[in-house]
Amino acid sequence: MSRYLDLADTLGSRIEQGLYEAGSRLPSVRALSTEHGVSLTTVQQAYRWLEMSGLAQARPRSGWYVPTARPAPGLPSMGKPNLRPIDVSDWGQVQDLLDLEREGKTIQLGRGMPDVESPSLRPLQAALARESRHAGIASLHYNDMQGVPALREQLSRLAVDAGYRAAPDALIVTTGCQEALSCAVRALCAPGDIVAVASPSYHGMMQILKEAGVQAFEIPSDPVRGISLEALELALERWPVKAIQVIPNASNPLGYTMPEHRRLGLIRLAQRFDVPIIEDDIYGDLVYGWPRPHALKALDEDGRVLLCSSFSKTLAPGLRVGWIAPGRYFDKVLRMKYTSSGPTAPLPQIAVAEFLRKGHYPAHLRRMRRQYQRQRDVMTDWVQRHFPAGTRISHPQGGFTLWIELPESFDTHALDPMLRENGIVIAHGNIFSAAGKYRNCMRLSHASVFTPRTEWAVRRIGEAIGEMLRTHH
Amino acid sequence: MSRYLDLADTLGSRIEQGLYEAGSRLPSVRALSTEHGVSLTTVQQAYRWLEMSGLAQARPRSGWYVPTARPAPGLPSMGKPNLRPIDVSDWGQVQDLLDLEREGKTIQLGRGMPDVESPSLRPLQAALARESRHAGIASLHYNDMQGVPALREQLSRLAVDAGYRAAPDALIVTTGCQEALSCAVRALCAPGDIVAVASPSYHGMMQILKEAGVQAFEIPSDPVRGISLEALELALERWPVKAIQVIPNASNPLGYTMPEHRRLGLIRLAQRFDVPIIEDDIYGDLVYGWPRPHALKALDEDGRVLLCSSFSKTLAPGLRVGWIAPGRYFDKVLRMKYTSSGPTAPLPQIAVAEFLRKGHYPAHLRRMRRQYQRQRDVMTDWVQRHFPAGTRISHPQGGFTLWIELPESFDTHALDPMLRENGIVIAHGNIFSAAGKYRNCMRLSHASVFTPRTEWAVRRIGEAIGEMLRTHH
Ligand SMILES: Cc1ncc(COP(=O)(O)O)c(C=O)c1O
Ligand SMILES: Cc1ncc(COP(=O)(O)O)c(C=O)c1O
Repeated sequence: MSRYLDLADTLGSRIEQGLYEAGSRLPSVRALSTEHGVSLTTVQQAYRWLEMSGLAQARPRSGWYVPTARPAPGLPSMGKPNLRPIDVSDWGQVQDLLDLEREGKTIQLGRGMPDVESPSLRPLQAALARESRHAGIASLHYNDMQGVPALREQLSRLAVDAGYRAAPDALIVTTGCQEALSCAVRALCAPGDIVAVASPSYHGMMQILKEAGVQAFEIPSDPVRGISLEALELALERWPVKAIQVIPNASNPLGYTMPEHRRLGLIRLAQRFDVPIIEDDIYGDLVYGWPRPHALKALDEDGRVLLCSSFSKTLAPGLRVGWIAPGRYFDKVLRMKYTSSGPTAPLPQIAVAEFLRKGHYPAHLRRMRRQYQRQRDVMTDWVQRHFPAGTRISHPQGGFTLWIELPESFDTHALDPMLRENGIVIAHGNIFSAAGKYRNCMRLSHASVFTPRTEWAVRRIGEAIGEMLRTHH
Repeated sequence: MSRYLDLADTLGSRIEQGLYEAGSRLPSVRALSTEHGVSLTTVQQAYRWLEMSGLAQARPRSGWYVPTARPAPGLPSMGKPNLRPIDVSDWGQVQDLLDLEREGKTIQLGRGMPDVESPSLRPLQAALARESRHAGIASLHYNDMQGVPALREQLSRLAVDAGYRAAPDALIVTTGCQEALSCAVRALCAPGDIVAVASPSYHGMMQILKEAGVQAFEIPSDPVRGISLEALELALERWPVKAIQVIPNASNPLGYTMPEHRRLGLIRLAQRFDVPIIEDDIYGDLVYGWPRPHALKALDEDGRVLLCSSFSKTLAPGLRVGWIAPGRYFDKVLRMKYTSSGPTAPLPQIAVAEFLRKGHYPAHLRRMRRQYQRQRDVMTDWVQRHFPAGTRISHPQGGFTLWIELPESFDTHALDPMLRENGIVIAHGNIFSAAGKYRNCMRLSHASVFTPRTEWAVRRIGEAIGEMLRTHH
């Protein structure tokens, strides 16, 4: 399993706690290998991980050091625990986010949209064109309810990279990850039921819960380690929670990747209280570190993890190709899938299967991970420079969004007139909470290749916040 | 409106009741025009309709006659009214139907699959290939949640042909009609609620109700006139029905097209009890008569009709392009659509929009309607010839399926071993009922161009039934 993540977590905590001085040399790879009884490779992976996290710096031919450069911005704070489950609040602002997309001329920092202009996607477009000419009839037919077998075979291979086993017949292709999540929730819950969900979390999930009449129990999440197991345990003890929903890898919006021992703790809790886990692994292949961390499902012993994913972040959302590995809930989920939208369109499935089979996927991922990681650093820098001092910024381990926390009294909706006027779209923090918390937060996307307009937009936002804070305080 | 349908209904009843002797001349067009105060064209349309229904025969330069040829088979009988709503029964057999599809080498008479090999679909395939090369990036993006505007414009035009008005902004594109129906049901109902549904009816709808935890109140339907308004009224009086679900045009599986006055009656009932109507118009463009009958929504005065449809029967199901005109339930339905599968894939929408915009649709429909109508007659003939005497057969007004009723004691599942052995797939009647009624019925598809194997399969089924009836009685 991903032992290096554990080691990185241990070392990272020590660094954060100040056990090593800034600028000082960190323990050698060999020393750590002996101390922790792990291979040299594992230590090196752990260090590379810490480097990505901004907690260690490599000096050629010398070793690893605690960084001295620009002080890292504070991380977002962890939310307060909740006392009870609640109904998910209104979706008006989610709709605003989706509506604004229409206009086209905006600077779109709001949506979780990958860069689909990468040349590494060309073989996929070629496959789509080819298949729509040749697959012809097959692509027009009603298709296997579970999805095109050739695609499920490829998905079964990807599962191996993510550390779990799923035969092609144990997988169901869905119309995006949204349908996978929606079928999972409806397979497990009836209206009035309670789902424990990491907070902040993907706004689409909040809306799925809302429309299913399900209550959300928001569990605070650490911006580095993920969902608080203590708060979760308390919730499980006191309430009849029907499912736990988490995004363990490159979580949206905080960007954390849960360390291994935390994952084990999560699985044990789920087993102890006999609750299924809905895992959203949509960003799993976009974690910057290599090899990619395992899915939580890799630790699943009794089929209680329903893994949901799609190619919407790694390839392109317009394909609407997702999947679910529903474990022991297979039958119920397949039924939900059938009633939800019938079989998923075959053409994009065939094209994606071909793209995967021909081996284009790893190269594409490598390229995108590099781009997203580089741009994470650049955007972090812009925010540090242009936003008021004290702004807290997440340090995502993958994906392409930054979570930004402003002083508690600040309401990001106060920016709306300025944003509208300048054609800038951001995602307001409150849509990532069932209760509409995080009004002092925002999520900025750093997916598309930056232009001078991008920096201009970030600066414009930062300056507007600064002005508002000065006039109000 | 479709006055000719009313006239056809009146005349048809008179003919069926034996008011005109077999072989005798029917009233002249001019006489009927005077008697009913309608135009000559309307009477001619009514007669053409009756001809298609097998109730009138044209003799060149002489007029219209009551047919004398092969006595028309008896129509299926109307089911008995139910006393209460019920939970929808198991879906196992629906799954069987979907599973068998996989094998490929079967004679598929079971699924409601149109003929996608028609040359009139070629421009659509060309559009798909062209758009996947050119639309490129656009087709990979997250798309407008309501659907591609160019397609909604075309849908708004099709609405005019179906007699209702819907601005592009009042329409929502869905991932097939299944998603439209599913969103409609979930927008209107909570678990435990009751939906009144014409019986027999589309099995996918039964499963949507089941998975939504909604009870079905099955309303018997006349094989020519559709849902019994008397039984419906009784249900509405006694039970808190949350929605009425009907397929007024070329209904699946019976093939009726409701006469105008019945439609008005249905709308009045819905208004009186303030209940919304979920209309499934998926076969509307495949009604053999021209011009196509209006949608029920054409009579809607207060936005209570949610019209659901798709191109799955008229073009190809693999496109997964459907739509809903949700009337006053727009907001709720859009929310359901968002949580159900996110925005629908843009590529097939763009291709269909182009196919429509370039005017290929009417020619394609004309061709398919002719094929389906011709094959309806051929298959009816085969059934009359090869099935035991007394077999009742529907006389569909559109679409591509026949409903066949055997003696009440016969269970079509007794045929299963023979069907499996011969690789023949049929749709068993019981999946078209929430309560699993109609075990003595089956639905046979007559979409694909017939081959000698098709007749062989129909004969094989008929002979097997004959043998079984002889040995058991
Ligand atoms: C965490 C997460 N899950 C699921 C989705 C929905 O994915 P899809 O577009 O494949 O339905 C998103 C998209 O924003 C997401 O960020
Ligand atoms: C009456 C009816 N409604 C809806 C559907 C589902 O259509 P779609 O494939 O567009 O989801 C079918 C398909 O069998 C049908 O017969």
